[in-house]
Amino acid sequence: MTAAVLSIGTELSRGELVNTNGPWIAAQLVTIGFEVFEHAIVDDDRPRIAAAIERFARNVSVIVCTGGLGPTTDDVTTEAVASVLGVKLRRDEASLENIRRRFEKLGRVMSESNAKQADFPEGAEILPNPIGTAPGFSVRIGRAIAFFLPGVPREMTRMLEEQVTPRIRPLAPSDTHQIRLKTFGLPESVVGEKLAGIEAAHEGVIIGYRAHFPEIEVKVLAKGASQTSAREACEKATAEVRARLGAVIYGEADDTFASVVGRTLRNRGVTLAIAESCTGGLVGSMLTREPGASDFLLLDAVTYANSAKARVLGVDEDVLRAHGAVSSEVAALMAEGARRASGSDVALSLTGVAGPTGGTEDKPVGTVYLGVTGAHGTEVKHRVFPGERLQIQTFAAYAGLQLLRTYVSA
Amino acid sequence: MTAAVLSIGTELSRGELVNTNGPWIAAQLVTIGFEVFEHAIVDDDRPRIAAAIERFARNVSVIVCTGGLGPTTDDVTTEAVASVLGVKLRRDEASLENIRRRFEKLGRVMSESNAKQADFPEGAEILPNPIGTAPGFSVRIGRAIAFFLPGVPREMTRMLEEQVTPRIRPLAPSDTHQIRLKTFGLPESVVGEKLAGIEAAHEGVIIGYRAHFPEIEVKVLAKGASQTSAREACEKATAEVRARLGAVIYGEADDTFASVVGRTLRNRGVTLAIAESCTGGLVGSMLTREPGASDFLLLDAVTYANSAKARVLGVDEDVLRAHGAVSSEVAALMAEGARRASGSDVALSLTGVAGPTGGTEDKPVGTVYLGVTGAHGTEVKHRVFPGERLQIQTFAAYAGLQLLRTYVSA
Repeated sequence: MTAAVLSIGTELSRGELVNTNGPWIAAQLVTIGFEVFEHAIVDDDRPRIAAAIERFARNVSVIVCTGGLGPTTDDVTTEAVASVLGVKLRRDEASLENIRRRFEKLGRVMSESNAKQADFPEGAEILPNPIGTAPGFSVRIGRAIAFFLPGVPREMTRMLEEQVTPRIRPLAPSDTHQIRLKTFGLPESVVGEKLAGIEAAHEGVIIGYRAHFPEIEVKVLAKGASQTSAREACEKATAEVRARLGAVIYGEADDTFASVVGRTLRNRGVTLAIAESCTGGLVGSMLTREPGASDFLLLDAVTYANSAKARVLGVDEDVLRAHGAVSSEVAALMAEGARRASGSDVALSLTGVAGPTGGTEDKPVGTVYLGVTGAHGTEVKHRVFPGERLQIQTFAAYAGLQLLRTYVSA
Repeated sequence: MTAAVLSIGTELSRGELVNTNGPWIAAQLVTIGFEVFEHAIVDDDRPRIAAAIERFARNVSVIVCTGGLGPTTDDVTTEAVASVLGVKLRRDEASLENIRRRFEKLGRVMSESNAKQADFPEGAEILPNPIGTAPGFSVRIGRAIAFFLPGVPREMTRMLEEQVTPRIRPLAPSDTHQIRLKTFGLPESVVGEKLAGIEAAHEGVIIGYRAHFPEIEVKVLAKGASQTSAREACEKATAEVRARLGAVIYGEADDTFASVVGRTLRNRGVTLAIAESCTGGLVGSMLTREPGASDFLLLDAVTYANSAKARVLGVDEDVLRAHGAVSSEVAALMAEGARRASGSDVALSLTGVAGPTGGTEDKPVGTVYLGVTGAHGTEVKHRVFPGERLQIQTFAAYAGLQLLRTYVSA
């Protein structure tokens, strides 16, 4: 059973906006068991929208379209669908009333252009939009079923999950089960090599990858005749993925690396202080993006200037002069100083050269010293990371969190 | 003159990867004067790739395709092009030698599968890849010219700029000039309303928007018979955009909000300390993502715990108890404490409730107090930001930088 995705909007065809709706919808369709071979993006042009719909209706069973349902004259998706079906538009009074009420709530008057959002091709099934103005709709075109949703991602995702998925799930040729594993520490190509052959050895299993630098998410999707057989196949393949990747896997599903490190600290009742230099607050920012960081984080002292390292963390100015701020000695003193200044159980420090300038022969751009201290004493690691400034900062932040996690788990 | 974009890869059609190549290429094509009405994404399937190329060749003059040029059996773009043209593949010895040398440099042996990357459809013009294994190529299909580039963004962008753009620029129907303005402070819909009618009043001018939360980039693109007339039309329309948006525009082209604030501090020779709470290091991280922050940033004390506010910044514990950490009083003391602790000229503080928990009736989630201090005394602002945790943190960081910029510029 095949499906296709059509994204409509001149801002998309001109490349002003990256189309995130398309891949999100495709991934949902794949997850419930459809094959998705093709997407199209077309501008807000009635004939081109109609041509794309007609082409997909000849080739696939399910079409999901987004965009072009707004109130302006540019929004012509509904007219295009009516022209494909050879039917007229019909105003739906219930939808019109909903739109009018929505505007009333906001203390505004509905304009005539908004009334147009209550027009649908004759015979269409209307899909209510609980959080926006534009309802969606669904029509049959030949042997295909087509869904039209607004392009606003928040509205689209909710309508797809609540209204489209339940309607098309019974059409999917098989049940599916998916497990998402989060990894950090290997590049995508190496993760791929390590997992080579798993798809071939496990029938109906698809291994997908999604890179969010510097993490790689591995998705194990299994199809089966029933939910039970799909889940079993998925768990079997996932066990093999786990065996091959080992400690590179840090979590599952919606875990982030920072949330897993935070959970480790919280579960062990350990309080943390950080002393950052080259990462400039990135480690603190990653940890506090997750709710609940106040359970363990006392202080993140971003001591960017040497004077701040001395004044706030008490780093000895003679050591700074003798070894430089980017050194094993200063990393150790920064961690110890952050622990002392905050009264925390453990402390992490990062000092390095993020570039593009500041590198030397001994300490090239990418050089980072990571320190950790606590009841087990102080440890320092030396690393040289590749890439540009933001990459180096990100690698360093991840390596720091990794070091902290290992220290606390020991 | 029209162009179309084709992105090839099963990881794209399945939605495992967001297609950023497509919009980037489209934006480049629009910028040099082409109209781009359509993109397609197809999986690594020879007949579907061939069908998409044939369809575009009937409708547009320039086709830019990416992906499917790798060494694996999944990569079938070259074969698909040969089948469209009805020609055979021919191995190019010079390209083969380049690939072999590339592997030698990396200390590896070229495999037979890599040799396949030196195969091209007969009659194709080869486009060398200076930074990767897979060369690209170009062929004529009917009246269209089609370019095939690797899907790796770094390789693709360089090859498009160096090899495709010079070949197609002479085909563009008009010269173009573009100015990109960076704005912060208004939602995209309001920016759009404020600029309504400018396209109609300035012939050949297109206004584009790109949202990078919470910023909106406004692109003013003008077409003209010559470079001079295009630039003049662009500058005229841009003057009107500037008049309508005013102080909402903070910069141009590759400026970021943090880089503009950093430049202001650097130019005035002012040193900075920051005291963050609810933003957890985000402000420091934004400022230090840009090179050269060491010119002005001394310290960012992320005093997440009240104990750290007291110990590191010297915030009076009685004030913390009486008014709470999220208060005008504590914001002022945090800024003054950061200035004192670091010896900086000015200091910025942020304390608030980022949520999802911790809100009260008086201080709901989103409440943030922003403080700034320096030679002109201390100021505090109270704001309530909408949205979820990361949005609130981002809004707060921007508002803090804005407050700092105003204070320093006064």
